[in-house]
This record gives sequence, structure tokens and C-alpha cells, in this order.
Amino acid sequence: MTLYVNLAELLGTRIEQGFYRPGDRLPSVRALSVEHGVSLSTVQQAYRVLEDSGLAMPKPKSGYFVPVGRELPELPVVGRPAQRPVDISQWDQVLELIRAVPRKDVVQLGRGMPDVTTPTMKPLLRGLARISRQQDLRGLYYDNIYGVLELREQIARLMLDSGCQLSANDLVITTGCHEALSTSIRAICEPGDIVAVDSPSFHGAMQTLKGLGMKALEIPTDPITGISLDALELALEQWPIKAIQLTPNCNNPLGYIMPEARKRALLTLAQRFDVAIIEDDVYGELAYTYPRPRTIKSFDEDGRVLLCSSFSKTLAPGLRIGWVAPGRYLERVLHMKYISTGSTAPQPQIAIADFLKGGHFEPHLRRMRTQYQRNRDLMLDWVSRYFPAGTRASRPQGSFMLWVELPEGFDTLKLNRALNDHGVQIAVGSIFSASGKYRNCLRMNYSAKPTPQIEEAVRKVGAAAIKLLAEHNDSAEWDK
Amino acid sequence: MTLYVNLAELLGTRIEQGFYRPGDRLPSVRALSVEHGVSLSTVQQAYRVLEDSGLAMPKPKSGYFVPVGRELPELPVVGRPAQRPVDISQWDQVLELIRAVPRKDVVQLGRGMPDVTTPTMKPLLRGLARISRQQDLRGLYYDNIYGVLELREQIARLMLDSGCQLSANDLVITTGCHEALSTSIRAICEPGDIVAVDSPSFHGAMQTLKGLGMKALEIPTDPITGISLDALELALEQWPIKAIQLTPNCNNPLGYIMPEARKRALLTLAQRFDVAIIEDDVYGELAYTYPRPRTIKSFDEDGRVLLCSSFSKTLAPGLRIGWVAPGRYLERVLHMKYISTGSTAPQPQIAIADFLKGGHFEPHLRRMRTQYQRNRDLMLDWVSRYFPAGTRASRPQGSFMLWVELPEGFDTLKLNRALNDHGVQIAVGSIFSASGKYRNCLRMNYSAKPTPQIEEAVRKVGAAAIKLLAEHNDSAEWDK
Repeated sequence: MTLYVNLAELLGTRIEQGFYRPGDRLPSVRALSVEHGVSLSTVQQAYRVLEDSGLAMPKPKSGYFVPVGRELPELPVVGRPAQRPVDISQWDQVLELIRAVPRKDVVQLGRGMPDVTTPTMKPLLRGLARISRQQDLRGLYYDNIYGVLELREQIARLMLDSGCQLSANDLVITTGCHEALSTSIRAICEPGDIVAVDSPSFHGAMQTLKGLGMKALEIPTDPITGISLDALELALEQWPIKAIQLTPNCNNPLGYIMPEARKRALLTLAQRFDVAIIEDDVYGELAYTYPRPRTIKSFDEDGRVLLCSSFSKTLAPGLRIGWVAPGRYLERVLHMKYISTGSTAPQPQIAIADFLKGGHFEPHLRRMRTQYQRNRDLMLDWVSRYFPAGTRASRPQGSFMLWVELPEGFDTLKLNRALNDHGVQIAVGSIFSASGKYRNCLRMNYSAKPTPQIEEAVRKVGAAAIKLLAEHNDSAEWDK
Repeated sequence: MTLYVNLAELLGTRIEQGFYRPGDRLPSVRALSVEHGVSLSTVQQAYRVLEDSGLAMPKPKSGYFVPVGRELPELPVVGRPAQRPVDISQWDQVLELIRAVPRKDVVQLGRGMPDVTTPTMKPLLRGLARISRQQDLRGLYYDNIYGVLELREQIARLMLDSGCQLSANDLVITTGCHEALSTSIRAICEPGDIVAVDSPSFHGAMQTLKGLGMKALEIPTDPITGISLDALELALEQWPIKAIQLTPNCNNPLGYIMPEARKRALLTLAQRFDVAIIEDDVYGELAYTYPRPRTIKSFDEDGRVLLCSSFSKTLAPGLRIGWVAPGRYLERVLHMKYISTGSTAPQPQIAIADFLKGGHFEPHLRRMRTQYQRNRDLMLDWVSRYFPAGTRASRPQGSFMLWVELPEGFDTLKLNRALNDHGVQIAVGSIFSASGKYRNCLRMNYSAKPTPQIEEAVRKVGAAAIKLLAEHNDSAEWDK
């Protein structure tokens, strides 16, 4: 672990344990530099991490302070999943979640939907309409199996920002990131193989492992620094792991960005044990910090990282346009892509390529990042206000999803059922585990522009949780 | 085999062997009824089969005649694939075919593209443009995993014409027929399982079997009546076959429509051996006869048939909208669909549903059927004129693809390479076999409105074939 991360963790722990209280001035950069024998820039980096986690707040010319005005919920505890490969369950609950159609009378806090109503989307929609009107033959025919060339060129340019030097021919367009993930897994693994995953982990990727007959080995994951490298190393020593699948940037559901040094260390581990890395970067462009964080792929030298991403979170999921940079597995991925959907619809590809070429993507991203970051602060505030005492919550560094942890023994499945009648839907925590862990957790979406309705929905979730908790505390069942 | 098929085959053989010559009057319906001891309607059915195959021509009030004016090429011989399960090869050649992007300077006779330039497509494109302009939220979000309800309702109505009584909830929308096929296979089979296929068989479906680790057992298939039920029965007795995968309507590549009685008999076989049927009906709406032929699914009583189809051949492949009616395998197919692409893009689904609801589909289909049937006759004529003597060809009963068989020992891979410099591309026969059979065959597309350029392209294929044949006949290599 690098120095600044160590320092940030140390300070963070002190703040969270009440050593420094809300409103307190934190030690100066210089003082910490002397105290810990590190450079000034290391301390500054550490403070930036704390700032991003909402634990420190800069005041111009006065240094850093512990934020006042609201008490942030504590961070979620690090999960302790089974340290062995398991068959993945939870399909029924995932199915319930994805069966839900957008409905005006239900506030769907559960699904991974971005806000698609912003005016910065307009040029894209105009582009789509134009292509349809023209009866564009390219838009209606099968295209090259790699996908539309102009789009691949634009994505290669986009990925430069994440540190990746790729050409259009290193990329395969897919039908959403789902297809990128499933073709990647199938390109590497046989049924029965073991895949290590961060935990909690994106339910879609885990259901893919399940559907393809793989076993998941859940690795404990820190809500600020990501997957535990120690636990991963132990797992790699103990089990014949075929691939590591994770979301290091703006993790779903925890929201952290894995520090660069840890990304490098993970890659080194993968090289040492000769396993592939399936890197889900679907939220990478939505990091609140600029420039956007680097991918593990950007450090990859021998093509073992398969980078999967899409425009589903940055533009609109309904477009179903994703991509994979499969490195040395290109040929296998092409075959899997062909048998999965043939080729990807060209119309949205052409429209997105035009949108990027026209310079519309960067302003759109800026707007969305700002909106999502503001909404995060609001959502954290609502959780502090409306949820039971002792509720913990993540500190998302990007994207638009908050992970909330209720007291141990709490059952968010029951909570979701109780919310049915109130027109609110959440994502229950158990679908983020291969083995049904995190039953006391839930994930809420904060992409939409804040409205009294949404605040009311979050309040209802909190109120229902308080009610359930009280019932449980009254009942003898609680301790069973 | 039913009586009328028997009779049609008998008469067909007599015509092809020259017993009846071009211009000859064929025996009257009454005479044949007496001679073979069958009903008048059986003879009439037999004559309809012969008529569809171009072997008999009705003259009003005069009976049936052997057509004159052009000598039709003989029918392809029935293939003799290996009578054992094989690992599927040929991926490189398929990749070559699908890597090809539509190009103005190349006449692509090889790919399965419909004609998308007709005015009857206009309402669909206007609909797509309208949805994009409206920034329709449903179009941009994830939809229900089953797909857009209105489209499923329209497809259920459409499928009534094929004899299927289905509700919207029996259907899952997929990203093209490819995804329908691959989710079906994965819902039923495990890697290593054996799937019986018609032979020659659609290369996409076979590559799916390959990619998923299945073995294919190729069953000899008649160019007029379809998969051999005798050979299939033998195979079912000998091998632990998990599923039968075939295209009974407007077969790709042979173009036949399997007679109804044979469809029923096949289903009975599947019941007896308790195997599933994966029925590819992607060309069923493009049969030249009206009403369209029934599906095997329409006779299915215990949900063992998974019907797969799409709008790729009737509307446009670039839309990537297909569907599957998975019968008893619905739940498994849903899971496989979810992990494959999440959900299917809603915009084209909404546009297609509007197109169907608006009554635009039926007139469009009528126009395309007529165009494709005319083009078939033209294509057969061109093959008779430009191809080497002894060339055989299929008698497509629908769709837009002709299967051409050159003398044994001929290599269409070489032919395709020779055509590279001439701006023409064909589909080589070997990709339609799991084991590289049909090297002397090729498939040509006749969907486009005929132009001198297309005729010239077909002429070039024929001329190149004649040249290659002559070279081979001169060389000692020929008999090796």
C-alpha cells in the first residue's frame, strides 16, 4: 500500500473514532509531514482521499477541518464472505429486480439507471433520428463483427484518458457491458472454473458466472480502498483461480476508486499466478475527480486484462452499446460475441460515434458528474436524517449509487416487501453476494434530479427500516 | 412419409430422369389417382409440391406440364455427413465471411441480407426517428427482461398464422435470432452434449454449438423434404442426443419447406426419445406460398419446442430484434438472456410494435415474397446459363438464398479466393457443415432488386467456376 493511502486510513480512523470531532481543525500538512516522515505532497494526496470520502473539508487559507452540520454515517464494515468457491445463488431476487419496468407510480431506487433527461443528451437523440430518417443502409444491415469502425476509433481516443493506448482493432463493440462481461468470461473459463470477485459485487456479473457454470470466490473488499490484496493472494495460493473479476473504478455497489498503487499491485499478483483480469470500467467516466482514474488495463503489458465497459451509465442503457478490449483473448472473444448476438446494432453505434466526434460527450460527462456528486451529498444527508441510528453508508467517489448497511440481522428482503405498498423499490443486498451475504444491506440510486418525491421515497425506506427494527427488537425472533 | 410426398418424389424422379421431357403433358390427376390408388386430393397435393419445386407447371384447363423454355439445374444430391457426433470446425471461414462489411464495390452474394431499400420499410424508419426525437424514456432505459410488452403482443398475433397459440408472456425478445438460438441451446445443453442438426445447416447455429462446447451430429437432409427422419431415428437410437436443431421452413441454405406430416413425425420422434427441438423459423414469414407454413412448435403439446425467430430477414438485421418462445424452458432462457445482454434495446422494439400495429407488416411481406420469388427464378436461370454443365441447384420455397452444387472434388474456397479480385463474394459450402463437407457447394443471395451488376457478378462466379474446373481437369491433382 502506498504512503498516502496509509496516512489517509490512519487519519480517517481517528476521525471516525471521534479523536477529531466535527468542526475540529485537522493537523496541518506540514505538521503531518514531520510527524510521519513523509513528503508534503504525500500528505496532500492523503487529504484529497479524505476529502473525497467526506471526512475532511478544506477551508481556503485555513487548512483542513472535520465537516460539521451533518454527521456522516459510518462506513460499512468489510464483509466476511466464505473463503471458498461457492455456487452462486440469488437468481430469483435478481429476476424480481430486473422484471420491474420503469413505472411512474414507483420510485425505483433499486436499479442502475442513469439520468437520461438532461439537455446534453439532445444531440445524440437528434443523431439517432437523422440516421433513421435517411434509411441508412449501414444502419439497417449487419455490420462488421468488430462493430462500427468510427465508434471504435472514438472509444480508443476516449480510453486514452484512462491511460490505455489502444487502437480501433483492439476493441470489439458489444450489446451493452453485459455482453462484454459474458463474452470475456466465456473466452477464458470453462464450466466449473473458479473466478475471484470483489465482494459485494455487481449482481449481473455474478449471475453471468452462475449461468455459465462457474464458481465464485468472494474476496473481502474495503469500502475505501477496494478488494483486499492480502485475501486475494491467499485465495490465489489456495485455489486454482482462473480469473479475477472486479470493478475498481467507482465500484458497484461500494463506490470506491481503488488507489493506483493497489491497481498495479493487483496486476502484479495476477501476473505472478498467471490469471486473467476482467475489469468492469462501466462507471469509470463518472468519477467525481478529474482527470478520471486509470484502469488496471492501462498498466497491462501482456494482454491479460479484458477491459469491459459501455455507454449504459454515461449515456443511456437502452442503447445497449458496450465494448471490450480483450487483449490476448481477442480471437476467442470475437467467436463468443458472434454466437451471442451475431453483431451489434449499427444505428446507435453510428449515432454515438457522431456524438463523440461532435465533441458533445465531454460537456455531457461534466454535467452528469457534477449532478451525481451533489446528489450523493444529498442522499448521504437523507440517510443520516431518516435511517435508523447506527446505519452505515458508503462514500461513492463516482457514479450514482449508495450502499447502505443496517444492523446485523436486519433483512432487507422484508424491507423491500414492506415497501411494495409504498411505491418504492430498493436493491436488496443479498444479490451482491454469491452466497446470500449482505442481507442487512441495500443499494439506492441517486441519479435523478432531486425532487420532494425522491426525498419522500428515501424517508419511507428509512421509516420502514426503523419500524422493522423495532418489531424485531420486540420479538424473540431477533436473536435466533 | 405421407402418400403425397411419396408420389411427388416418384414423379419428380421420372421427370428428372427424362422419362417426361420439357413440354410433355404429365398424367392427369384422375389417372394418377387410379394408378396409385390414392385420393384425388393426394395427387393434387403431390402436384403442388412438384409445382413449387419447378418440376411441373399447371396450364389452365389442360393439366400439368413439364416446364419448357429453361432447363432447371438438377437438385443437389443428399449429403452424406459423418454418422457420428463431431467437434465443429470452420470458424476461420465463418469469421472471414462475417468480417466483410457492406461495400459498394463488392457484390456480396455470400451474406444473408434481405433487401431493406423498399418503400414499405418507410413507416418503420419514420417510427424509429419519432421515438428518438421524443427522448422517449422507455426507449432509453432498460426495459423488462422479457422485452417490450406491445411487441410481444404483436408477435403472439403474428405467430397465430404459423398455427401457434401463444400469449405475450410465452415470449422473450432477444437481440436477433442469434441470441434466441444461443440462449435456447444454453438453456438445454451442457458442454459435451450432442445436438442433431440438419445438414447442410446454418453456420451461425453451428458456430454457437461449437462456441458452447457441444458436438454436432449432422443428419442427411433432402433438398425438397428436409431432414431424413429415418437417419434421425437411427441417430437417436445410437447416441445420447440432447436436442434437435433445425430450420424446417424455407431452410437455410436449402430453401425447402418441410411437409407438415414430416414436421409432425419429427415431433413424435422427439417425444419418443424425450429430446428438445430448437426450431429456427427466421425465414418462415418469407415462404412464397400463402398462408405461410406451420411451425413444428404449432403441434407441440408438452413445451419441448423452443421456437426462435427474428425480424432480421423480414425487416432489417441491423435492428437486432428477435424472439424465442421457449416453452417449458422459459425460466432457464430468461436467465441465459439476462447474462447474455441484460435486456434488449427498447427503441427498435417500440418502433417495430408500432409498425405491426399500424398494419404495415403484411403489405411489406407480400411485396418481399413476390420480389424474392421472382428473383429466385432469375437466379436459377442465371445459374443454368452461366455455371458449368452438371451444376445442381436448390428450389427455394421461400427466403432469398440459392444453394449451388458443383461437381464433386470442386473447391469453392479456391473459387471464393479467385473471385476476390473480381469484386464478388460468395458463401462457401464448407461452413454449412460441422465437419467441412460441402466443399463443392456455395450459397448465393438473391434478395436485391436485379441489376445488370448482379447478373454480371453471378456470371463471373460461373465463369470462374468453369475456369477452375478446366484447370483441375487438366491437372493430375484432380483425382487425388
